[in-house]
Amino acid sequence: MRVINDILGYNDRKIFQDDECFAFSLDSVMLANFATIRLRDKNILDLGCGNGVIPLILSLRTDKLIVGVEIQKQLADMANMSIDYNNLSEQIKIVNSDMKDYVNDENSEKFDLITCNPPYFKVNEKNYFNLSMQKLIARHEVKITLSDVFCVSKKLLKNNGNLAIVHRPERLLEIFDLFRNNKIEPKRLKFVYEKTSKESTLVLIEGQKNGKPGLKIENSLILFNEDGSMTKEYERLLVEVRK
Amino acid sequence: MRVINDILGYNDRKIFQDDECFAFSLDSVMLANFATIRLRDKNILDLGCGNGVIPLILSLRTDKLIVGVEIQKQLADMANMSIDYNNLSEQIKIVNSDMKDYVNDENSEKFDLITCNPPYFKVNEKNYFNLSMQKLIARHEVKITLSDVFCVSKKLLKNNGNLAIVHRPERLLEIFDLFRNNKIEPKRLKFVYEKTSKESTLVLIEGQKNGKPGLKIENSLILFNEDGSMTKEYERLLVEVRK
Repeated sequence: MRVINDILGYNDRKIFQDDECFAFSLDSVMLANFATIRLRDKNILDLGCGNGVIPLILSLRTDKLIVGVEIQKQLADMANMSIDYNNLSEQIKIVNSDMKDYVNDENSEKFDLITCNPPYFKVNEKNYFNLSMQKLIARHEVKITLSDVFCVSKKLLKNNGNLAIVHRPERLLEIFDLFRNNKIEPKRLKFVYEKTSKESTLVLIEGQKNGKPGLKIENSLILFNEDGSMTKEYERLLVEVRK
Repeated sequence: MRVINDILGYNDRKIFQDDECFAFSLDSVMLANFATIRLRDKNILDLGCGNGVIPLILSLRTDKLIVGVEIQKQLADMANMSIDYNNLSEQIKIVNSDMKDYVNDENSEKFDLITCNPPYFKVNEKNYFNLSMQKLIARHEVKITLSDVFCVSKKLLKNNGNLAIVHRPERLLEIFDLFRNNKIEPKRLKFVYEKTSKESTLVLIEGQKNGKPGLKIENSLILFNEDGSMTKEYERLLVEVRK
């Protein structure tokens, strides 16, 4: 059933979603907070925007133009419903397209910042028989691979533009290779841990097209205290965007 | 002045050092605790062992043979003094040699585990005019580069042997490349943070020669609480080795 919700504690933004076919993830919320928005940035792009959660959060941090590209019509429609509901149709534009087809002369080297929460799993990984088609496409590399995401980003990013993605730490080596093979230099890395005592389950990475080498490992984001209560950092992330 | 000290809280081990020319670092203590020692491991090697702090700590974790190679005679002598003092001359052998010269037919593919706390800085980095020659060689890539360390390790490691190093996160991308160009697959990564709110200042990495891909980002090591007091994890590290 399609319902309208707050995006967590961001009271200024409502979002339509359908838990059976697609609900935004906290990973996207973290990414939308992690990405650097520079004062000079004019055009922002979210690749594979789903129901639009990243553009909706980014619009709390900037008044610049944000484009979201989504291959699944049902999700693109949901994103547009939320954009209309929040009166953001001037700032956020949704394009219902395969991101590979979005690369053309007009869009080439147009964007200052690209964000992407890509499918995490290779098609042969994990059991996906019980997933809806929407979830399958969002989570598995059926329609798009990580390599495609980088190839598309390289073409769409301006010189010195930033690409910020979220992914699983197991694929960190492959991710670094993809960044550098596409001339996007990894600059910021942030690991997310469920608890201090556990392995990292998520990594946020931002790189700069034709950037100089120099990687910073930012302070970790730890979600829960050992007693199971939320950490202050996590609580803050859920109610307040980074300005 | 050459003095004898406890290695931190490890009451069973005393170490000779000379603060003016060379004192062991906490980085080495962390590395000696981080490295995996498998039950089947027989031969362990510490490359650039300085005054022997890593072999001395490792000997609290295993009774297998540990070799330390050190190019600086004064430091190798100090390591031997500590080994004698602790009655460990059966278990720990110090070789006063350039690690590159230690590679020969006899030592080739002999070691199950190699540890190394290498010089962190390139020769053109940082001001090093006020350092003693000992400290200069220990901290800057004067006598040995990181690339040399990997080249030597590749030759000395058994198939499936482990290499564990400590380094600065800024050089992580280069380190990953060196691991993989030498067919040592990064398997475990641990970041050290002074405080939760700060960037990581140190990284511990272990890889396996001809290992399968699959990287784990282990729980972080955070040294101080926000109020400046030591964290429990750090306190524990200073008094108790990992078994």
